[in-house]
Amino acid sequence: MYSFRNDYSEGVHPKVLQALTDTNLEQSVGYGMDPRCDTARATIRRLCSAPNADVHFLVGGTQTNLIVIESLLRPYEAVIAAHTGHVNVHETGAIEATGHKVCTVYAPDGKLTPELVESVVKGHSSEHMVLPRLVYISDTTELGTIYTKAELTALRACCDKHGLFLFLDGARLGSALTSPENDLTLADLAALTDAFYIGGTKNGALFGEALIMNAANDHFRWHMKQRGAMLAKGRLLGIQFQTLLEDGLYFDIARHANEMAFRLRDGIAALGYPFPVPSPSNQQFPVLPNTVVRQLNEMGYEFEIDHADGNDHTCVRFVTSWATPEAAIDRFLQDLAACK
Amino acid sequence: MYSFRNDYSEGVHPKVLQALTDTNLEQSVGYGMDPRCDTARATIRRLCSAPNADVHFLVGGTQTNLIVIESLLRPYEAVIAAHTGHVNVHETGAIEATGHKVCTVYAPDGKLTPELVESVVKGHSSEHMVLPRLVYISDTTELGTIYTKAELTALRACCDKHGLFLFLDGARLGSALTSPENDLTLADLAALTDAFYIGGTKNGALFGEALIMNAANDHFRWHMKQRGAMLAKGRLLGIQFQTLLEDGLYFDIARHANEMAFRLRDGIAALGYPFPVPSPSNQQFPVLPNTVVRQLNEMGYEFEIDHADGNDHTCVRFVTSWATPEAAIDRFLQDLAACK
Amino acid sequence: MYSFRNDYSEGVHPKVLQALTDTNLEQSVGYGMDPRCDTARATIRRLCSAPNADVHFLVGGTQTNLIVIESLLRPYEAVIAAHTGHVNVHETGAIEATGHKVCTVYAPDGKLTPELVESVVKGHSSEHMVLPRLVYISDTTELGTIYTKAELTALRACCDKHGLFLFLDGARLGSALTSPENDLTLADLAALTDAFYIGGTKNGALFGEALIMNAANDHFRWHMKQRGAMLAKGRLLGIQFQTLLEDGLYFDIARHANEMAFRLRDGIAALGYPFPVPSPSNQQFPVLPNTVVRQLNEMGYEFEIDHADGNDHTCVRFVTSWATPEAAIDRFLQDLAACK
Amino acid sequence: MYSFRNDYSEGVHPKVLQALTDTNLEQSVGYGMDPRCDTARATIRRLCSAPNADVHFLVGGTQTNLIVIESLLRPYEAVIAAHTGHVNVHETGAIEATGHKVCTVYAPDGKLTPELVESVVKGHSSEHMVLPRLVYISDTTELGTIYTKAELTALRACCDKHGLFLFLDGARLGSALTSPENDLTLADLAALTDAFYIGGTKNGALFGEALIMNAANDHFRWHMKQRGAMLAKGRLLGIQFQTLLEDGLYFDIARHANEMAFRLRDGIAALGYPFPVPSPSNQQFPVLPNTVVRQLNEMGYEFEIDHADGNDHTCVRFVTSWATPEAAIDRFLQDLAACK
Repeated sequence: MYSFRNDYSEGVHPKVLQALTDTNLEQSVGYGMDPRCDTARATIRRLCSAPNADVHFLVGGTQTNLIVIESLLRPYEAVIAAHTGHVNVHETGAIEATGHKVCTVYAPDGKLTPELVESVVKGHSSEHMVLPRLVYISDTTELGTIYTKAELTALRACCDKHGLFLFLDGARLGSALTSPENDLTLADLAALTDAFYIGGTKNGALFGEALIMNAANDHFRWHMKQRGAMLAKGRLLGIQFQTLLEDGLYFDIARHANEMAFRLRDGIAALGYPFPVPSPSNQQFPVLPNTVVRQLNEMGYEFEIDHADGNDHTCVRFVTSWATPEAAIDRFLQDLAACK
Repeated sequence: MYSFRNDYSEGVHPKVLQALTDTNLEQSVGYGMDPRCDTARATIRRLCSAPNADVHFLVGGTQTNLIVIESLLRPYEAVIAAHTGHVNVHETGAIEATGHKVCTVYAPDGKLTPELVESVVKGHSSEHMVLPRLVYISDTTELGTIYTKAELTALRACCDKHGLFLFLDGARLGSALTSPENDLTLADLAALTDAFYIGGTKNGALFGEALIMNAANDHFRWHMKQRGAMLAKGRLLGIQFQTLLEDGLYFDIARHANEMAFRLRDGIAALGYPFPVPSPSNQQFPVLPNTVVRQLNEMGYEFEIDHADGNDHTCVRFVTSWATPEAAIDRFLQDLAACK
Repeated sequence: MYSFRNDYSEGVHPKVLQALTDTNLEQSVGYGMDPRCDTARATIRRLCSAPNADVHFLVGGTQTNLIVIESLLRPYEAVIAAHTGHVNVHETGAIEATGHKVCTVYAPDGKLTPELVESVVKGHSSEHMVLPRLVYISDTTELGTIYTKAELTALRACCDKHGLFLFLDGARLGSALTSPENDLTLADLAALTDAFYIGGTKNGALFGEALIMNAANDHFRWHMKQRGAMLAKGRLLGIQFQTLLEDGLYFDIARHANEMAFRLRDGIAALGYPFPVPSPSNQQFPVLPNTVVRQLNEMGYEFEIDHADGNDHTCVRFVTSWATPEAAIDRFLQDLAACK
Repeated sequence: MYSFRNDYSEGVHPKVLQALTDTNLEQSVGYGMDPRCDTARATIRRLCSAPNADVHFLVGGTQTNLIVIESLLRPYEAVIAAHTGHVNVHETGAIEATGHKVCTVYAPDGKLTPELVESVVKGHSSEHMVLPRLVYISDTTELGTIYTKAELTALRACCDKHGLFLFLDGARLGSALTSPENDLTLADLAALTDAFYIGGTKNGALFGEALIMNAANDHFRWHMKQRGAMLAKGRLLGIQFQTLLEDGLYFDIARHANEMAFRLRDGIAALGYPFPVPSPSNQQFPVLPNTVVRQLNEMGYEFEIDHADGNDHTCVRFVTSWATPEAAIDRFLQDLAACK
């Protein structure tokens, strides 16, 4: 019927596709050094109020995470992440494959705090242990939660105190920044982090992540090339981000995704199903009886299983996107109401 | 005026763009497990007469090279490559970054032979040295030369004798297989190599390489994920390769690129400029006086410098593509004739 | 006064020193290929009832751990370890530096069980996660606890069921095998693990670990050389292990270390200080008031702080060795009794 | 009869053994932080006129080479070495295993020059290539040749010009500094290199290399630990180097090794056998008829084969050491004279 499996189940937003079509036969130099990428970089610097930031375009999230981290750390340095952090669980050891340990700490809502960060720092005191050096967070988190400006400011202060880099994975940054609970801006992120990225893959692009780097890193393109992350036709990325960002399309479509998620959430909640961790963004995690899960699957609905909740219930994940039609939500809610 | 800098200066072949547009709002699972990728895999297996081969889609060439190599080798094993090999010079140490040495041997025309391979094998005899284990070649080579069936068969026999993998980088495979001097087929490549790839980036795709793997490698997708090479919207790759390969478009447009290259070569040669290493493919390497190079640049022509040839001459590289119009060649030749 | 800091505070057992002196001017080939190493390897195979095992001599524990693990694993494979495991905490990310993730699980007494191992295995189900492939344990553990034959047999069965390697770090194996609670033999270890080592550094050698490898690993010496672990004068290791093992010296001196530890433990307990995790081996972990810790330090006693236990108490670690004199224990206990 | 295979065929110089024996039961902290190591570090700083240098003790040469290099380089940076360099050929890819390419250049006598270094630098001009960043040399070289002060000064100037580190492998530094052709001192080496080491393994120690590091590298001990290079009983290294260096023993015994090498060389030359690359140090490379090589082997003489020189001759390597008796040389020369 409909897939709530992810926010990259469809292709690309039609306006972005049109921009790619319009520029298809332009000749340009490769590897992101073309005028289209220059324009997009200028737009991003402007939106971030960060005229001196380095902006790089990469193809995907795991790639971006591993290159940012290995480019900032020395071999004996390590990452601090929540136990749910994408780099810890869902990237097949990509960070460790670059030689770096990921030190994890249990974070009930998927968010790191200064206290959690300091608990890791304090446990690493000598040359017989790694040196924690970079705090990895994501906004939204793996649980759909988001950071407030106060929280991010406190993390920044903690990082300054302990000489840590702060890196924010923005694969779902559109959903975070358009959440009703959000009070952060792109300029805040540029001011408070050493590096963060604006995720395209999960918000309307064919693919692509726009990385904003404040930390000195003057050979970042060498790192990109070495890790196979320099797209030959680099301008594909510039064109996409320029189209998404030049007049707010990126945020408009993210807001749509959130609204569809809330419509879904409210409809499910109205049927009496609980949401143990409240999410103000485009991922929703209700707990459903296993019998209901089975009926939904049989009807053709697709979604991911998060975890078993006892023997009879399952916590599932529904994700909405820029492309999710309101009608699909309403149809789903009708079908869910009909489950026994 | 025109850029002969590379074969990825433009976007994507219009038929491929149309296919992407037509399927844009289809929902599918990610990471290359969708029906579009399945169809493309089936097409490739059929064209390769290799019903049991593993077929994987990756985004770019460096990425493919590094993952194939690290997936096949144990830590103490090494690559054998020509001194001009792409993995040796032009990938910022991507292979070494996975822990593997690249053992090089001088190959005047960019092609490895059994004798050259054996000279490397013989030099590595104990546990105090790396163990050469994989022969890396490309077709076309960095110099535009191509392998014959007899040459590739001899390399295969050499690899069998010494227990070596044979891996063929096909970033420009379209140009190689449609060269007038070629006698190899996709089925030959599948039969003679342990792994090879059909390059999309340099022959009409937005991006993408289709890897055909015969060597046992049952966790290849783990390697892809770990290296950040699993495209979220994987079907983009399936759709592109299916469109290019289902009825010969890939070869038709590669043939066009070659014909444009020969038209260019013949016109340049008619003006008396030499080509030290003859190339039967879409890269041509004439030697021009530096004064001519300067005039061409001033007119707006773009191309790469290969190397200085004495104090007064330069060996340059011209590359043609599926998108190169005949008129651009003719205009260039007129302009070249006018240079003093 | 006396250092209970570690079991490698002194040099080498006098008999081993004599053997090194006696053979000092013999000429031999390097890198462990000499007759002295051959003899020691034969002795070890005999003691292990493992005529076909590979035996390698390495210089230290971290080196051995990292090479065994990287030699057995493919890049996407990972280690399962207790949260207290030496490879997790105390080796500065040595395992991750070879590219492999260490997946940890909380083990209150430092020992892994089939249930704990399976909880990690179950959490890793797809190509988006690492593949746990090797169980790392140590005997004794970091907490001084030891494995029984029943426990190790159960772990072996669990590993067989899930296709896992079982690797036992025996840095303190002498203390474990001579513990009054032990029922394992070297032959049991050879039969139940894929690899384990007999630690020399912490039991009477100048340095050195003797690795017994049952898993097929025919290029292990290549791994050793690549990691800088092949000692030029390799026979130093053969001579030491032959002297320690040929007629039981290794076990005699380990038993002494244990007896000194129990004398210390009993004396401390008699003064009313608790030992939260009971240890049947040469590491003892009492909880002392901070005032007592300070007085002991002022008297010149050395020992490591394990962790703070509330605001007023500290869990400390006392380690005894082959070289610890009974008189040092008794003197310490007198001094401890005098603390206020 | 006698082994000229290497300079580490015997154990340890008797004075060093005596020092180890005398201090055997001293208790000390581990990992090189003990007073014996402090004393040796002070001695080395004094001999090097380098009061601020960092001095570290490591177990062996490959280990030292790989850790120095990985500690100084960023992932995209590479080593420049002669094609004969130990790190290129004889370390099983240890440098590449840390992720770094070794860029080689042909050096007939095994020595790098500014011209050779610059030829590598010039060939690496963009982010698509590695960035050469460290020049690796050894004194003596693999061919027994040595650097003069003028040559090393010129290399230093070249490194300064191009922003390169200069690292000197001193595995056979004793032989180099006591060569009749040498005009370098330890103080010169400390002034002209970023890092170098005084080799113990090949000049009278049981094992060990003393690294002098001028380049800022404040977490070097983290690198050592991570690579398994921190010896538990670190004072073994301090005691050895203090004994060797406190009153010149290191140089006295190296001079003996050289004198034995020259006696051997002169005797062989007097019999009419050529030495294609003249060596002023303890490795000598004559060319002998294969029939003579065979007879020497049958008599029980051991030495390494360097390379075949045509069908009938072989270039062999003879190495002398602190332990080589004059009588062994004379006996050998008699036996060689008797060969037909």
